[in-house]
Amino acid sequence: MTEYDLIVIGAGPVGENVADRAVQGGLTAVVVESELVGGECSYWACMPSKALLRSGAVLRAAADVDGAKQSVRDGVDVAGVLRRRDAMVHDWHDDGQVSWLEGAGIDLERGHGRVTGLRQVSVTGADGTVTTLTARHAVAISTGTAALLPDVPGLAGIRPWTSRDATGVRDVPASLAIIGGGVVACEMATAFADLGSRVTMIVRSRLLSPFEPFAGDLVRAALEERGVEIVTGSEVASARRDGDAVISLQDGREIVAAEVLVATGRVPRTAGIGLDAIGLPDGGWLDVDDTMLVHGTDWLYAVGDVNHRALLTHQGKYQARAAGDVIAARARGGAIDDAPWGVHVATADHAAVPQVVFTDPEVASVGLTAAAAQDAGMTVRVLDYDLSWVAGASEAADHYRGQARAVVDVGREVIVGATFVGPDIAELLHSATIAVVGEVPLRRLRHAVPSYPTVGEVWLRLLEAYGRPDA
Amino acid sequence: MTEYDLIVIGAGPVGENVADRAVQGGLTAVVVESELVGGECSYWACMPSKALLRSGAVLRAAADVDGAKQSVRDGVDVAGVLRRRDAMVHDWHDDGQVSWLEGAGIDLERGHGRVTGLRQVSVTGADGTVTTLTARHAVAISTGTAALLPDVPGLAGIRPWTSRDATGVRDVPASLAIIGGGVVACEMATAFADLGSRVTMIVRSRLLSPFEPFAGDLVRAALEERGVEIVTGSEVASARRDGDAVISLQDGREIVAAEVLVATGRVPRTAGIGLDAIGLPDGGWLDVDDTMLVHGTDWLYAVGDVNHRALLTHQGKYQARAAGDVIAARARGGAIDDAPWGVHVATADHAAVPQVVFTDPEVASVGLTAAAAQDAGMTVRVLDYDLSWVAGASEAADHYRGQARAVVDVGREVIVGATFVGPDIAELLHSATIAVVGEVPLRRLRHAVPSYPTVGEVWLRLLEAYGRPDA
Repeated sequence: MTEYDLIVIGAGPVGENVADRAVQGGLTAVVVESELVGGECSYWACMPSKALLRSGAVLRAAADVDGAKQSVRDGVDVAGVLRRRDAMVHDWHDDGQVSWLEGAGIDLERGHGRVTGLRQVSVTGADGTVTTLTARHAVAISTGTAALLPDVPGLAGIRPWTSRDATGVRDVPASLAIIGGGVVACEMATAFADLGSRVTMIVRSRLLSPFEPFAGDLVRAALEERGVEIVTGSEVASARRDGDAVISLQDGREIVAAEVLVATGRVPRTAGIGLDAIGLPDGGWLDVDDTMLVHGTDWLYAVGDVNHRALLTHQGKYQARAAGDVIAARARGGAIDDAPWGVHVATADHAAVPQVVFTDPEVASVGLTAAAAQDAGMTVRVLDYDLSWVAGASEAADHYRGQARAVVDVGREVIVGATFVGPDIAELLHSATIAVVGEVPLRRLRHAVPSYPTVGEVWLRLLEAYGRPDA
Repeated sequence: MTEYDLIVIGAGPVGENVADRAVQGGLTAVVVESELVGGECSYWACMPSKALLRSGAVLRAAADVDGAKQSVRDGVDVAGVLRRRDAMVHDWHDDGQVSWLEGAGIDLERGHGRVTGLRQVSVTGADGTVTTLTARHAVAISTGTAALLPDVPGLAGIRPWTSRDATGVRDVPASLAIIGGGVVACEMATAFADLGSRVTMIVRSRLLSPFEPFAGDLVRAALEERGVEIVTGSEVASARRDGDAVISLQDGREIVAAEVLVATGRVPRTAGIGLDAIGLPDGGWLDVDDTMLVHGTDWLYAVGDVNHRALLTHQGKYQARAAGDVIAARARGGAIDDAPWGVHVATADHAAVPQVVFTDPEVASVGLTAAAAQDAGMTVRVLDYDLSWVAGASEAADHYRGQARAVVDVGREVIVGATFVGPDIAELLHSATIAVVGEVPLRRLRHAVPSYPTVGEVWLRLLEAYGRPDA
């Protein structure tokens, strides 16, 4: 039996950061991992998906600038794209991440971790050997999520792809049906259209529905221009395989494709990790306070996707910094700063979660949508501006299309949300994130001058839309 | 004789904005313009220069991504680049801007404006007719700057280019010598290397010397890789033309080129506009307070480049908004808000001037450099990070090179300056501008989570470099 101050189950970016912060705070820590150290993001999500998307995006950018377009041939080189993806995931080897753990002073236990009691974890290795670990202070669960497979007759039988199969593609299918209209669905539709697949999306209502409505509209228009067929207004009834896969919709339509990607949501990877042993539902999401402590315990933390606060790598890492620090502080009996925006809490989860969808155009958003702000009871002013009207946009591309929205809480005169949709707009988002998190008053924001001619000049137009301030 | 509340001399973006704000505030206004309505920025500076630069930048971006590079041929299409530039400057016609003036309710008087006494301006038209204008409240001078021609024997005789000739180029010269190492010099070296000229830069000390030193170093390395020769360590002694132009340096070296671009600074366009009539030096910069009122007067404003506060279009427009508003407020006897960061002052001129240099890599900076902050007496912490180490950078390009720096005022624990150098980094700048202007404490900035994987994740690394906060 081996004892540590902290045991972390799941060595994705979140688990790594919890352990790293705790070790920096003077604790000993071990991470337990049954797959690759580095997790979903590094090998099967963010990193490979962006690699699949970038080549098409930069080619389209060059093809939309006179003087450059003459030097651009149509279409990506598929072998080059896949080679770049392979490099980005280090050919699915985790040596680099293991070295990082060693350098950070974090032990690694490979195998399947399971909570077996109060601050106790048993790890079953690939060869069946069982190691029992005891935590002096805390156990953190950061096992992330897996793709949800909806309960559709025949679907499991056709061996559908999940996000892992799509990001790990070796042989690009001639045709791909995608069930879903969220981030994974839209990004993979973009990528596979670039790679030469005939793509059909089967979408219950609209694309990117949690975002401002214009985001899904602009992404849909762009996908359709690139030949993606988007089928809405019905749901999947059944699936079968007849060589190609055949998806039958409830209204009788049939979609035929070589492969089917299911992108209809995520489930927590918390089944079989011993939650039932401590009175929590097996396979459920884990409810936590703002320090990531699981409700009803004083030793179990749930960090990242499993707590269902914000299913994004960067937000999980943010939670991990707070959790690792607070675990160390509590262990040494130090001061705890858990007031809103304190050192030991993840307050931004409630107010300022940023997200970029790497479609083309990109969608970048932070904070509340107009609808969400109204639902929260705020008096809201919505500031809209067509990004193509900004001088910087006309310099960037010959046919720039994009849209910006800022949502103002009129009572406090601060921005509580912003959404930008446009080619290569991702880097502009952090300006809005700082404005929202910093609660910078509009009167002060007017002194933050965007450089001319950048697309960021839209800030000027949004503030003008609010009207001139009085002295 | 015609009477207005406000007379503006110079109808560039700055003059247009002063007049527009005053009219929105209930005043009548006329702008006087001897050239094109829209000014230097629209026809001979920002707009055409960025058009000349964009095609090369997007091609290089595509050529540095595996899967895309296979579809990119080397080099821009010169005719396409020039056509794009022509479109951006509307073929040097100002019809659109004139229509905008009309729509905004601003009168236009074409001709050369000259102050002839207290709130009085005479305008000499192209046909010699003279119109006398009287201002009930204020006269604003926003005539901008022109290229400085250094006093070098023979230089004027070789008919050197200024920025106007470079941005307006029709026949790309086989070779171009550029005297200077500032923004215009670096941008035009980038553009003409792309257009196929053999470019030699003659630089007194270093490139982009007002910026953090690594900015000039990275731009220099990139230019030299593209074949630009950069001659430093001597000064121009004389110039002559022998078919090609011949520039002789003080150390005896000679640079031969088909054309010579002089980019050694700017002079105010205030000669011959009647400043002597009101006791001010003809041709000098105009000293103003933070409402842009010229010292010693209660009716004369100087807005934009002519006041020498910050020679940038966006900063001049910012001043123009304050000046137009305060002119209207003073005219109606309204409240004046001239405290720092107030409605009627351009406080950011002192603390947070953003600037993007559209070289490749781009240079984006705001606020104080480390050296400037130290000179200002602050206790400074400098946070540095290699941008290529950020996951978002490796997704963006296969051989990303860049550098970031944040300058922290340790006493207040706020960021007072930031510099980013990297390909396509311009849009990230506004995040730093809002942090500086908003004086957002580092403790709060840690809750502004950059979206993964964007280049903006460098914010996380910069804050980590400052160390972890205590509870």
